[in-house]
Amino acid sequence: MKIAVVALGGNALSSSGEVSYNNLHKTIQHTCKLLVTLVKKKYGVVIVFGSGPQVGALLIQNQLAKHSVAPMPLDVLDAEVQGELGYLIEQSLQNELQKAKIRKPVISVLTQVIVSKKDPAFKHPSKPVGPFLTKTEADRLQKQGYTVKEDAGRGYRKVIPSPQPVKIDEVSIIRDLVKKAVVIAAGGGGIPVYEDKRQLKGIEAVIDKDRAASLLASSIKADELIMLTSVPYVYLNYGRKNQQPLKQLTRKEAEHYLREGHFLEGSMKPKIESSIYFLKHGGKKVIITSPNKVKEALLGKEGTVIRN
Amino acid sequence: MKIAVVALGGNALSSSGEVSYNNLHKTIQHTCKLLVTLVKKKYGVVIVFGSGPQVGALLIQNQLAKHSVAPMPLDVLDAEVQGELGYLIEQSLQNELQKAKIRKPVISVLTQVIVSKKDPAFKHPSKPVGPFLTKTEADRLQKQGYTVKEDAGRGYRKVIPSPQPVKIDEVSIIRDLVKKAVVIAAGGGGIPVYEDKRQLKGIEAVIDKDRAASLLASSIKADELIMLTSVPYVYLNYGRKNQQPLKQLTRKEAEHYLREGHFLEGSMKPKIESSIYFLKHGGKKVIITSPNKVKEALLGKEGTVIRN
Repeated sequence: MKIAVVALGGNALSSSGEVSYNNLHKTIQHTCKLLVTLVKKKYGVVIVFGSGPQVGALLIQNQLAKHSVAPMPLDVLDAEVQGELGYLIEQSLQNELQKAKIRKPVISVLTQVIVSKKDPAFKHPSKPVGPFLTKTEADRLQKQGYTVKEDAGRGYRKVIPSPQPVKIDEVSIIRDLVKKAVVIAAGGGGIPVYEDKRQLKGIEAVIDKDRAASLLASSIKADELIMLTSVPYVYLNYGRKNQQPLKQLTRKEAEHYLREGHFLEGSMKPKIESSIYFLKHGGKKVIITSPNKVKEALLGKEGTVIRN
Repeated sequence: MKIAVVALGGNALSSSGEVSYNNLHKTIQHTCKLLVTLVKKKYGVVIVFGSGPQVGALLIQNQLAKHSVAPMPLDVLDAEVQGELGYLIEQSLQNELQKAKIRKPVISVLTQVIVSKKDPAFKHPSKPVGPFLTKTEADRLQKQGYTVKEDAGRGYRKVIPSPQPVKIDEVSIIRDLVKKAVVIAAGGGGIPVYEDKRQLKGIEAVIDKDRAASLLASSIKADELIMLTSVPYVYLNYGRKNQQPLKQLTRKEAEHYLREGHFLEGSMKPKIESSIYFLKHGGKKVIITSPNKVKEALLGKEGTVIRN
């Protein structure tokens, strides 16, 4: 059985980043309908999902209710989002598999992802999270030791370290489970933890979900890594007049274009880096495309395919 | 290998029901240290936990932030709590097992519990949840079709149906997992769902965690059901001058005392009913005691033991 790890970007979960129940439910149902193709093709499937807007929503709730309910640290909020989105994806996928008369269980496992406390990201927090803040609120947070940055004129936001994932804590269980079930794991990039004298501890950080998916894929010896995002292809000169979709490329070519600076930080760059990591660590094939093109991409008709 | 399902009451998770991170973390660490005994004794262990105060905290956050973030329905909040507490219990137990040099993985799985839409509980909601409301807020909710009740002079609260669990959705996976890992499942009594034309749908309800634990225990053919609560024994005439701890009793005796009305609704009554259900459906032994007495209870020196 071939194993594929599928990373779902924000657009596969909610249209326009809106996080109401109805929007999430509808968008996730649509995405799960598309994922049935993969399960039909007898793949063992692990689903990883992003969760930026959902963590943001919980941070806002925690902030606004802080005089009544003590706010939770970010690792706990990540765990809450693994519950929230894991449940919605699991149930929708179960329902779509049932409609397609495919008998395969779906299971969501909480996933801690171990990072290094020495990761340079902890000295240079870079990932904006949570609500926009006034100057006064921003100053107060900064005095508490947090990093706050102005975000494109829209106000201030807390910025959080985005360290490299080092190890997926639950990897042995996930590797076993994928033989008989569709597994939902490492949601939101995983709950960030570090090891201190062999004890696990939560830490305020956000792990990029594509990097987590890539590490998870290589750790369970997956054959394919499929990253679903808002565009059907990886492009050269993206957004310019001469933009050009890439259909087939080798790892070496991907490395070359990466060095040339074709891929945006926080967008296509981590996807390409994750592709290269996976292909260097046992992976056979990477597909980057949009959820609507999954079926065609599996037939080799759409999407960007990267191989060694 | 003997299999035990352990249901953790509120006092095993937070002292005095306070839901701050520090309180939860400290209390859960203490409880997990006590649970190591069970794993040492080579039991296969499934942990179920209650979550009343935590769901209440999320409801308050959702309410207070509703003008900024669309509130989530109760089934989604239950899923969030499975993430939150599942993570905290998993990590603490991993750390305690590590200290005790026991090599056994711990895994948390999201769990949907199927209820019947025809359950009489849906006509008679009985479980108070969420924040206390003013008369005006209560009236507004009632107009929206919710049931609201006055709660012992402290204000009004929304009341939610507490239906019987009918089926644990992820039972086959949990049964497999417990052979090699400590499994955390059915947190908060499970995410309540019902089947409509073979499709799963979330529903506003709260499932009693002892009933869910009992159903899960019989479904995975567990040998023992261990319910940890705030008292070391089940008592006759509880709270009165002539209160009397019960140390050993048979299922028939438990049924007899239940009929005599010794056990409080919402407290010991569901535990006794869950015990009887489990013993009638393949279970061999039930222990009801407090977390601090687990070790002695496993040696038969403390706690209430019920057998067929």
